[in-house]
Amino acid sequence: MPIEVKSTVRVSGGLLVKFSHASSAVGLPMTASVFLPSGGDAAISTLEEAKAEGIRYPVLMWLSGLTCTDDNVCQKGGVFPALQAHKLALACPDTSPRGAGAPGEEDSWDFGTGAGFYVDATTEGYAMNYRMYTYVTQELPALLQAEFPLDVTRMGVSGHSMGGHGALVCALRNPGTFRSVSAFAPIAHPCACPWGVKAFTGYLGGVEAGEEYDASLLLAKAPTADDSAASAAAAAGFDDILVDVGTADCFLEEQLQVQSLEQGAERGARKLTLRRQPGYDHSYYFVSTFLPEHVAFHAKRL
Amino acid sequence: MPIEVKSTVRVSGGLLVKFSHASSAVGLPMTASVFLPSGGDAAISTLEEAKAEGIRYPVLMWLSGLTCTDDNVCQKGGVFPALQAHKLALACPDTSPRGAGAPGEEDSWDFGTGAGFYVDATTEGYAMNYRMYTYVTQELPALLQAEFPLDVTRMGVSGHSMGGHGALVCALRNPGTFRSVSAFAPIAHPCACPWGVKAFTGYLGGVEAGEEYDASLLLAKAPTADDSAASAAAAAGFDDILVDVGTADCFLEEQLQVQSLEQGAERGARKLTLRRQPGYDHSYYFVSTFLPEHVAFHAKRL
Repeated sequence: MPIEVKSTVRVSGGLLVKFSHASSAVGLPMTASVFLPSGGDAAISTLEEAKAEGIRYPVLMWLSGLTCTDDNVCQKGGVFPALQAHKLALACPDTSPRGAGAPGEEDSWDFGTGAGFYVDATTEGYAMNYRMYTYVTQELPALLQAEFPLDVTRMGVSGHSMGGHGALVCALRNPGTFRSVSAFAPIAHPCACPWGVKAFTGYLGGVEAGEEYDASLLLAKAPTADDSAASAAAAAGFDDILVDVGTADCFLEEQLQVQSLEQGAERGARKLTLRRQPGYDHSYYFVSTFLPEHVAFHAKRL
Repeated sequence: MPIEVKSTVRVSGGLLVKFSHASSAVGLPMTASVFLPSGGDAAISTLEEAKAEGIRYPVLMWLSGLTCTDDNVCQKGGVFPALQAHKLALACPDTSPRGAGAPGEEDSWDFGTGAGFYVDATTEGYAMNYRMYTYVTQELPALLQAEFPLDVTRMGVSGHSMGGHGALVCALRNPGTFRSVSAFAPIAHPCACPWGVKAFTGYLGGVEAGEEYDASLLLAKAPTADDSAASAAAAAGFDDILVDVGTADCFLEEQLQVQSLEQGAERGARKLTLRRQPGYDHSYYFVSTFLPEHVAFHAKRL
């Protein structure tokens, strides 16, 4: 599964590589970006030079929100200095297939193109290409391991809004794949909010089928302390989750419903640290403010 | 000269205020953004709350490049953590009048709208509104002092590309106004490069009239060490200049010509630190990499 490098740019001492590849999961070309820190003082300008360093870096996967691409966090996240300082890589997939031709995929900004919701769709017209769950949990990690100087056995996941939902769901369902998880302003209980209901109805045929993609429900089902599997699960993956949300986020009450995460965590075994950041909104100004702390959180666990 | 606050957003512990005002220099409404650090732990969310802190902050004015607005450095500069750490404010004007209706102002991306070049135009059709030099050196500083908790007697200036040119020119001609100056990939010798020749011809009627807006020529005329005015000039303003440029910048040879700055500095009295950053390009990935260092440079001198 070769990649085609579209551009490389030096930033914060490391290298940002944008590439495309033919995705088997999605059945279309996909674009993604990877930031590689540098191990020394050499001015690394190509992927080949980065590989020649002989270092495999741990990696944080970043899942973006509605309407976004791999570019948003790269351009607006202010994250590269922290990544370089912690010698942590960043992998940024797109948010949906592009050009699938599914019925209605271009009709609204919160469904279809740019709004894949990190699920494997089952509905007619979407089932063939809208398979972002398999893409980010299986195909992309394997590609990262094969094509980049990365060690995906030390991989965490984070994201924003729809991507925060994606990060929590992908990690809770794959604690062996993602060893650390955090989220910014996640759509925390999509089965019960307008964005989630629209997405699950369109991609999965209904909300019931979306329960396996609902972070609050998954969190409640996480093994309890009494559960014999609890320590094994924690050893295999992560046992704590960091979530930030702004109190001035205009989507907080109707769409995000982060209190559902707290309720889920009370019933399950994963420890949740939910921080309500006073006065912050839903934008990348909020994300960029706390992303360096999330980088440190992941780096410590990877 | 009242302002109309368009939005306020918390970022990196401080407050980003976007506002518009009726500009007397330009004769049109102008939009700008100001970042205010916070002095304490309070979650400041409005300009009134920021003023109530009772602190007047030193300020760095940021001049953006071709096609940009006040938004570019705010969204892509990764600069707010450094500004908050140094308790330094940032003031970001637009790059030109908007909607002047000057002949041909929308015909190309490197002249007219979004490309004011920080000059006071004298040509027919442009002289009335394209007066960005007066705007950024006089009107905006007075407005910042009157409407924001800022101390413009401690003001520096920096910028990128066309804005790097603007920063150098504004500071060299107004060392009493700007107490520190730096630049990223500046158009260093506009009288001799295609962008500059086009701009000076269109705004000023020719390249000769542009000599007063050419940083390399101005730098060569700066008072020498033998000059009796030298120490007075240095005391009034700044005596050193920091410039960064990437060696992979595609505009380096034809448009930027930073070597002319070095030649000018050899003849004048201002000390120039010109750093050629290996492998970096012309983008905000380059700017964001070194902007925290520039913030520290300015903060030390303000």
